[in-house]
Amino acid sequence: MRPVAILGIGQTKIDEQWERSIREIAAQAIRLALNDARRESADGLFVGNMMSGILDRQNILAPLVADFAGLKSIESVKIDAACGSGGAALRSGLMAVASGELESALVLGVEKMTDRHPHEVTAALATAADADYEGEMGLSFVGLNALLMRRYMHEYGWKHADFAPFAINAHANALHNPFARLHQKITVEDFEKSVMIATPINLLDASPIGDGAAALVLVPAETLRVGTRILVAGSASATDTLAIHDRPDALFLAAAYHSAQEAYRQAGVSPEEIDVFELHDAFTIMSALSLEACGFAERGRGVRLGLDGDILPTGRIPITTRGGLKARGHPVGATGVYQVVEVVQQLRGECGTTQVPEARIGMAQNIGGSGSTVVTHILKREEM
Amino acid sequence: MRPVAILGIGQTKIDEQWERSIREIAAQAIRLALNDARRESADGLFVGNMMSGILDRQNILAPLVADFAGLKSIESVKIDAACGSGGAALRSGLMAVASGELESALVLGVEKMTDRHPHEVTAALATAADADYEGEMGLSFVGLNALLMRRYMHEYGWKHADFAPFAINAHANALHNPFARLHQKITVEDFEKSVMIATPINLLDASPIGDGAAALVLVPAETLRVGTRILVAGSASATDTLAIHDRPDALFLAAAYHSAQEAYRQAGVSPEEIDVFELHDAFTIMSALSLEACGFAERGRGVRLGLDGDILPTGRIPITTRGGLKARGHPVGATGVYQVVEVVQQLRGECGTTQVPEARIGMAQNIGGSGSTVVTHILKREEM
Repeated sequence: MRPVAILGIGQTKIDEQWERSIREIAAQAIRLALNDARRESADGLFVGNMMSGILDRQNILAPLVADFAGLKSIESVKIDAACGSGGAALRSGLMAVASGELESALVLGVEKMTDRHPHEVTAALATAADADYEGEMGLSFVGLNALLMRRYMHEYGWKHADFAPFAINAHANALHNPFARLHQKITVEDFEKSVMIATPINLLDASPIGDGAAALVLVPAETLRVGTRILVAGSASATDTLAIHDRPDALFLAAAYHSAQEAYRQAGVSPEEIDVFELHDAFTIMSALSLEACGFAERGRGVRLGLDGDILPTGRIPITTRGGLKARGHPVGATGVYQVVEVVQQLRGECGTTQVPEARIGMAQNIGGSGSTVVTHILKREEM
Repeated sequence: MRPVAILGIGQTKIDEQWERSIREIAAQAIRLALNDARRESADGLFVGNMMSGILDRQNILAPLVADFAGLKSIESVKIDAACGSGGAALRSGLMAVASGELESALVLGVEKMTDRHPHEVTAALATAADADYEGEMGLSFVGLNALLMRRYMHEYGWKHADFAPFAINAHANALHNPFARLHQKITVEDFEKSVMIATPINLLDASPIGDGAAALVLVPAETLRVGTRILVAGSASATDTLAIHDRPDALFLAAAYHSAQEAYRQAGVSPEEIDVFELHDAFTIMSALSLEACGFAERGRGVRLGLDGDILPTGRIPITTRGGLKARGHPVGATGVYQVVEVVQQLRGECGTTQVPEARIGMAQNIGGSGSTVVTHILKREEM
């Protein structure tokens, strides 16, 4: 397998884009990434998307986007791993280039969610749970996460306000990201006073959906021999049961653990060496569980990292440095690609106020379902 | 890139399986393929499926299936290319093994379509067309193919009965395939008398949907050093516009042409050397257009191959030897894997009455949308 580097990145502002179709948003991100890479096209297009079949009545999204972006006749395919689709699309594009089958690949994450009634979106999001054993019971996705958060608080003795730093840090960082959905500073008081959605999850525990697209251009690393290059040093995907009740331990994200361990192994690094970590904070509870599964905290101690300031851009393990799902926004199938775009921005030193000093190794972890498909990527900046 | 071989195959009978869920059908095909390969598991699972999000309210199908099939924690992902999803899933699995990233891969195609009202299924199938420019106009998928068939008849002067051999051959071959949906011999008279669906397409021009799953086990070819092995000698995917009206020539399947040419190049063979061709006969018109795009007939002469008997198991270019989409059935996202399973059966000499004599090189072509994503695979039997 030959090493692969990320040559270009592109992203659109996450928003309610009622006046633009999914193909327009997608094509914009693709053109931005190609411009950034100074390329005209690529050999293949790998599209991460969860909901276009349901919300846009559009399957086979990949050739539609390829055509609209002017990438006539190139190989293209759509990958679904629910909210983990973006990371899974990167992994598919990576294997295509690593295998030598393609000389370059575009990876796109795209989702268009705001044209439909919120009830339709909630129902569509519930398709990321087990339809026969969770969805049929009326469990929404926020409901599932509420059960996890309640259990975590019960098991380890944390109170709701202890989760506030995850949301506060994300909102503070998003202020400096022009592509973020929310530009709104919040306090502990805001966090505690915000409306309840599914106890104990309130509005500021939860990430906002949105319309958005992000894209990457992948090339063989060997073709980049001068200046700085961003290497994909680790890439791994693992799965867990779809239904949470089938797991021996609901509070341990086994697939996050396995994919992180494999990514560390490939990259030859330990958690201590990760300079920046874009994690999947769909809900504050997910931040805690991810930090624990990836070896940054002991079991039940993930929230401690927030309370101690370790997650700030200047902290020990900076997370959600561009706003995370919480404030940058969570266009579900696109999120995994946004995360990687943001890690690349950090490694390139393009993050201004929220720049992690001397960031050289970054990690992105994208979670589909309630930890059912977890894709972890580790990127390294190399000076040639 | 290292060569990849198909070590095991599995398939379920295509039928209306109202008493079984999608995960059960999927797991059955997986177990059959693993048994055939004499393996316990694989490193990854690549699932081709189009409609589970819409018809089963189930996205993120891959970890659900992996879990139910007892493949705990392995990497898994779902690929959507509408009716071309199966072929695209094979290509994804292939790249994963060819790159060295995985040492083995399961490729699954699965679809569950018969639990819903036919109107829902028709609407779901229409998501394989351009939602904004075709679907919005009320064009169903059979409607699109009817327009193509009408144009073809007008342009080249064929009459409807000239397409009959495609359906008659498929039905005749399916009689000997226990996994086929339809076991019913038909005549030219049956073909001409069958009910009209969308003029000029009648019931016997069209393939039946169904519930079904098929699976393959892929391993590096170098690990198989004795006996017979089935090599994936060519694999290519190409795309065309999703909307037919955007094409310069509606009767030329450009993506089929490009992917076939690339597969021929990789395999180092010409169309004359293909012993058996499992093509994508969703409608009789698609058989004609595929044969032409792949170089088996001149433009406008595809139907001639049917009329001359060239497509029979003993003919010059045998097609749909196990019944094809027309009579084996068309569980859309699963079809591409069924096709490859059947080519493997031919190369292994397991096809009894419809065995193509001394078949050594076989081709499968899977089409998503109206020729929007086309994936072509060429397999070779090698004696070690």
